[in-house]
Amino acid sequence: MNHKLICKLIGNVLRIEAVFMFFPLIVSLIYGEGDHPAFLWSMIISLVAGTALAGFNPTDKNFRARDAFVVAGLSWILLSLFGALPFCFSGYFDSFIDCVFESVSGFTTTGSSILTDVEALPKGILFWRSFSHWIGGMGVLTFMMAVMPSVNASSVNLLRAESTGPSPDKIVPKIRETARIMYLIYFVMTVLLLMLLRATGLPWYDAFMNAFSTAGTGGFSHLNTSIGGYDNMAAEVIITVFMFLFGINFSLFFILIGRKFVRFAKNSELKVYFGIVIVSTLLIALNISGLYGGFFAALRHSSFQVSSIISTTGFATTDFNLWPTLSQSILVILMLTGCCAGSTGGGIKLVRVIILCKAAKVELDKIFHPGSVKAVSLNGKKVNQEIVLKTALFFFLYFAAFFVSLSLLSIEGTDLVSSATAVIASLSNIGPGLGMVGPTGNYAAFSSFSKVILSFCMIAGRLEFFPLIVLFTPSVWKKGRVK
Amino acid sequence: MNHKLICKLIGNVLRIEAVFMFFPLIVSLIYGEGDHPAFLWSMIISLVAGTALAGFNPTDKNFRARDAFVVAGLSWILLSLFGALPFCFSGYFDSFIDCVFESVSGFTTTGSSILTDVEALPKGILFWRSFSHWIGGMGVLTFMMAVMPSVNASSVNLLRAESTGPSPDKIVPKIRETARIMYLIYFVMTVLLLMLLRATGLPWYDAFMNAFSTAGTGGFSHLNTSIGGYDNMAAEVIITVFMFLFGINFSLFFILIGRKFVRFAKNSELKVYFGIVIVSTLLIALNISGLYGGFFAALRHSSFQVSSIISTTGFATTDFNLWPTLSQSILVILMLTGCCAGSTGGGIKLVRVIILCKAAKVELDKIFHPGSVKAVSLNGKKVNQEIVLKTALFFFLYFAAFFVSLSLLSIEGTDLVSSATAVIASLSNIGPGLGMVGPTGNYAAFSSFSKVILSFCMIAGRLEFFPLIVLFTPSVWKKGRVK
Repeated sequence: MNHKLICKLIGNVLRIEAVFMFFPLIVSLIYGEGDHPAFLWSMIISLVAGTALAGFNPTDKNFRARDAFVVAGLSWILLSLFGALPFCFSGYFDSFIDCVFESVSGFTTTGSSILTDVEALPKGILFWRSFSHWIGGMGVLTFMMAVMPSVNASSVNLLRAESTGPSPDKIVPKIRETARIMYLIYFVMTVLLLMLLRATGLPWYDAFMNAFSTAGTGGFSHLNTSIGGYDNMAAEVIITVFMFLFGINFSLFFILIGRKFVRFAKNSELKVYFGIVIVSTLLIALNISGLYGGFFAALRHSSFQVSSIISTTGFATTDFNLWPTLSQSILVILMLTGCCAGSTGGGIKLVRVIILCKAAKVELDKIFHPGSVKAVSLNGKKVNQEIVLKTALFFFLYFAAFFVSLSLLSIEGTDLVSSATAVIASLSNIGPGLGMVGPTGNYAAFSSFSKVILSFCMIAGRLEFFPLIVLFTPSVWKKGRVK
Repeated sequence: MNHKLICKLIGNVLRIEAVFMFFPLIVSLIYGEGDHPAFLWSMIISLVAGTALAGFNPTDKNFRARDAFVVAGLSWILLSLFGALPFCFSGYFDSFIDCVFESVSGFTTTGSSILTDVEALPKGILFWRSFSHWIGGMGVLTFMMAVMPSVNASSVNLLRAESTGPSPDKIVPKIRETARIMYLIYFVMTVLLLMLLRATGLPWYDAFMNAFSTAGTGGFSHLNTSIGGYDNMAAEVIITVFMFLFGINFSLFFILIGRKFVRFAKNSELKVYFGIVIVSTLLIALNISGLYGGFFAALRHSSFQVSSIISTTGFATTDFNLWPTLSQSILVILMLTGCCAGSTGGGIKLVRVIILCKAAKVELDKIFHPGSVKAVSLNGKKVNQEIVLKTALFFFLYFAAFFVSLSLLSIEGTDLVSSATAVIASLSNIGPGLGMVGPTGNYAAFSSFSKVILSFCMIAGRLEFFPLIVLFTPSVWKKGRVK
């Protein structure tokens, strides 16, 4: 293992985090609610630790796949730990574990909170919470690759370890250019969303907060009643549309910019994503119309909630805990599938579900035509058998992680629906679940043990398991053993 | 498609069913509760229909895989429909759908009931319910192969379509011999269980009923309080042990008879099965000890319940609906995994979980050693990549079926826990779930639509999906299209 290069890269991640903390510092100084020392201290600590680590001078230029996975796993853990410092120093949190939970939830774009009264917190701290969604959405390693010329070319493995989906797209041949284009699209879309929200009459601060949480498909809100608190129809519609947009594979936006409209429109995952959103929205609207006095009033809530859950954002305009079982079942399924690979959203990813459905179809064909060697194809291209197997194993790992975590979480005896949806909401980086962790509830009542389990679920879900598994494989840490 | 041979085979299945109905007819005549005409009429109808179908004289000797799947799918549906006739004619059931539900639940060894007062029914009808578990346990097609010399050699596909697990074992080269040996072991073990139950003081009738339900890992009881109604410690222990035994791959018993003790003891699936049962029993006993006034009293219930659920029998000695969340989570996981392939039990099957865990490990190794071509191995043999993929796809299909069925079931608005566990209990052929369908509850309250959905789940789970999917593939029925 290339220890020195790993340290150097992680050091850079922490230095980038220190720079990012500058923005909430400014906000805290503007509003003068006394939370600026929390950021100052956190910046200094992150900067010192980061610079110390970045000081390693790697002589070995090799950077293998496993090194990239270790960097991804460690970066995200340290990012969350150092990101928890401002919460710690602010004095508004009960314990260090609560701070870490909130920080992990932020960076992984989950948006679950242990706070029972968000509005009591100073604006700087709330800004940092939402901003961490934005940082985590496209990924901090991707950002590092985009801005740091020193990160060398073999970093395609880094992009692979951090990005989501069965086989990440390099939209242009150069990996650094890919990272830059992704971040540029992300930045422009966020600014557009910010302007539109401002135009609906939201104050600048609120527009910023919601833009960050929406772009990262995170879901933290600085209001106790989430988006429902505004009762601003225009803002709701804009957020509904943008949650959907941020759930699309970013490489498709690049295709759109390149005016390849046919290729864009023919993308299987996009078509399925669109179809599922339409069908789910209509079904739920019909199912809940009685609760809201009519189909169109119901449509407003159902479209917002479907977009929020499938994109794994987790904003709420209403308490879907009170919806009938059919609507809840649909939402739980959307929590699992999530949106498109290569977006800022989480979950299993629709492209995986498509690949597995097609693979099952191929398996069926084999019964009809024994000896046939038909392969799975997607968007007109053949999908490697290796990718199909990897996809199927990802599906297995997701449910294995779900059941192991559910068992651990149920030790404390919270009811089954709350426990199960808390785990799904963490693994898929959504935020709210059902029952105790529904849109009007929160994660405060869980024990520290459960909060640690859920924090691991969030990171495991964001990094799609393998970086964390690699990190906890003992042989990785035995010098000279793994070659 | 070889229509004539398919009709002939299905006809034989119905004739076998008519012969099987002779036993409950005898019982009904012995007890004289007036239910014998129900059996007489059902026998006549099954015999006439079966003989008419069996009269087809196939000129084409070809019998392809897809034909076998069609036979398996149709046989099980017709077996259940004709098996529902005695319930229908008895007059004790509210509707034909209720009769079919009960019959499907019997043959698929599920054991879910729509009856609210089992004890009100005549003994002949109750005998037929439990006996259908025994018929379904080892499979009616396997029985046909064992007793009918006319079923030709290509019927390995039939055995494949009906038996469970990723790749069924032919324990001896000849398929007919394999079927015979399986049934012989099954018969001897059932007789042994019957004798032991009788020895504990159970009346002959009760011993028969419980032996059938245990051997088929079904779970129908002729008492409203299931096994808990006896308060007979010896019978409970015997049933606990035998539920466990019938959850073992029957080819392992053949190995045991051949005195290959090392090969028996080294079987991975058996070791995992044993390990899971021990660990789950202890964890649940610790978790519920407060409810039963001590660890040992709790151990009695936990061992019985773990054995009952993992073997997918579904007997109960206590209401595990009242157990804490940890115990319930463990039971739900056991409901999903089920026991060993090639047993009379249901669920995903442990060997599949083992293969997938090993495949995930191989995937992890690829990160450490890119380009490595390590394969999954099981019991010292390499597992074909094709089998690994098929196993992973089965896992996907199970959960896809679960979520689709859950959505359909939740239309009627039963709570999420009841709906979800009803679907799992049907797909895994267990019987009781949690909530409304818990051990003291039943399936009576579901709508006819939901009962039909659950009936399909039971057959799909028993036949491991593909036979039913083949049956509902339109191209199969277009003449000359599929070649």
